[in-house]
Amino acid sequence: MILVGERLNGSFQDVGRAIAQRDPVPIRRLARMQAENGADYLDLNVGTGSLDPVSDMGWLVHTVQEATECALCFDSTNFDVIEAGLKAAGEGCLINSCQAEPEKMRRAFSMAIEHRAKVIGLTMNDAGIPKDADARVVLAVELIESALEHGVEMESLFIDPLVLPLNVAQDHTAETLRTIEMIKLLMSNPPNTIIGLSNVSQGVTERSLVNRVFLVMAMAKGLDAAILDVNDEELVDSIATARVLLNQEIYAQSYLKSFRKQRI
Amino acid sequence: MILVGERLNGSFQDVGRAIAQRDPVPIRRLARMQAENGADYLDLNVGTGSLDPVSDMGWLVHTVQEATECALCFDSTNFDVIEAGLKAAGEGCLINSCQAEPEKMRRAFSMAIEHRAKVIGLTMNDAGIPKDADARVVLAVELIESALEHGVEMESLFIDPLVLPLNVAQDHTAETLRTIEMIKLLMSNPPNTIIGLSNVSQGVTERSLVNRVFLVMAMAKGLDAAILDVNDEELVDSIATARVLLNQEIYAQSYLKSFRKQRI
Repeated sequence: MILVGERLNGSFQDVGRAIAQRDPVPIRRLARMQAENGADYLDLNVGTGSLDPVSDMGWLVHTVQEATECALCFDSTNFDVIEAGLKAAGEGCLINSCQAEPEKMRRAFSMAIEHRAKVIGLTMNDAGIPKDADARVVLAVELIESALEHGVEMESLFIDPLVLPLNVAQDHTAETLRTIEMIKLLMSNPPNTIIGLSNVSQGVTERSLVNRVFLVMAMAKGLDAAILDVNDEELVDSIATARVLLNQEIYAQSYLKSFRKQRI
Repeated sequence: MILVGERLNGSFQDVGRAIAQRDPVPIRRLARMQAENGADYLDLNVGTGSLDPVSDMGWLVHTVQEATECALCFDSTNFDVIEAGLKAAGEGCLINSCQAEPEKMRRAFSMAIEHRAKVIGLTMNDAGIPKDADARVVLAVELIESALEHGVEMESLFIDPLVLPLNVAQDHTAETLRTIEMIKLLMSNPPNTIIGLSNVSQGVTERSLVNRVFLVMAMAKGLDAAILDVNDEELVDSIATARVLLNQEIYAQSYLKSFRKQRI
């Protein structure tokens, strides 16, 4: 299970303010904390309030890299912002994200090849997010075909079946789970699957509970990665437990501690 | 999701003692508590220490029925004990359980027809419990065929793919999950699936966590019922959450409370 720390996002007030004021202290602290809590990647998103997102992303990369060697994930709908991150950070990053639209796929997969990066492909296009799993899988296949045409291997592609808030799109959540399952059955060497977990509980009272139950169900369906709050201890304990129950990690009495230790 | 309360089992010291001493007080208390906490059935098991299990089961049924109208589940490897329960309790009970052996299936399904009871069929036979899912599904098919031959409808059959403790049979847990999924895909009108949840965490330090993570994963695979600790609040909250995420229950801010209320 690949964990992407969600916390360095300008939509969080403290992060948005730190970016706007070029204050490295909260950024470094959040970067270190997430790396210590087991993040494999740190998601970087300058937020929608950024006046100069290209410059902000460059500063964010520089600031985070002073604090940790954790790999980075560039999260933007603007490919110029992502490219600024890729140029500043070097190889092994994650491009977050690319829709199933020819021009966007061309740009994202070309950047992935140039910078030896991996790509998160969203099962949506200009028409929006399909409600049912079958239609999402059609878009997943378009992403897979385009990735392979551009020379991006399946291990470097992460399909995101898109998670919407439970309280506004309840009929989507089960379809998202089905999409994960279907993608893992598409081919003998399928791409990775990933979700932006916290979306499911936006505006929901029992956020942490909803997050961990949804994640565990998604893991049962074959989920490989998630963008989430690595500081949520109950969530990380649930992941560790799901992994031993799925026989992906050897059980020992101290498996919770082992999971944390091996991730630092 | 059908919840079967596990607590009235003679292997628990307090219950074993109450049965041996014919003390109705702890039995009634546990019966009421489980019914109030949402049990659809109460599992009754006189325990392996019982000297006269047929008589003990009769007393247990009588005592429980003084306290609650909750439906009953007769849990024994001895069909005479189960029959004593069925005769004492009337229609609508659950027979727990029957292995995939011709003579046992004949007896269990005949009793089910006679007493309008439902049957839990185990995916094991005299050779033991197969390790992999495929072999368990073969036994599930034998149970299904025998049930249909005897006139037991699929809605009255519960297939138990058998849960073993994580710490002694870790390679079984993922196979159990796969078995549930495969059984639900066997036919357009498949039988129910059920597990004895607490088995998975026998001897494991993080019992409650392991139980609820396993149950949620099993629900994602299509699980219909479980024998479990209905008094475990975090477990019941996880079930309620999984149900809204699987779109089986309508989401509302108060969904946790609603789930409890509608179950009383």
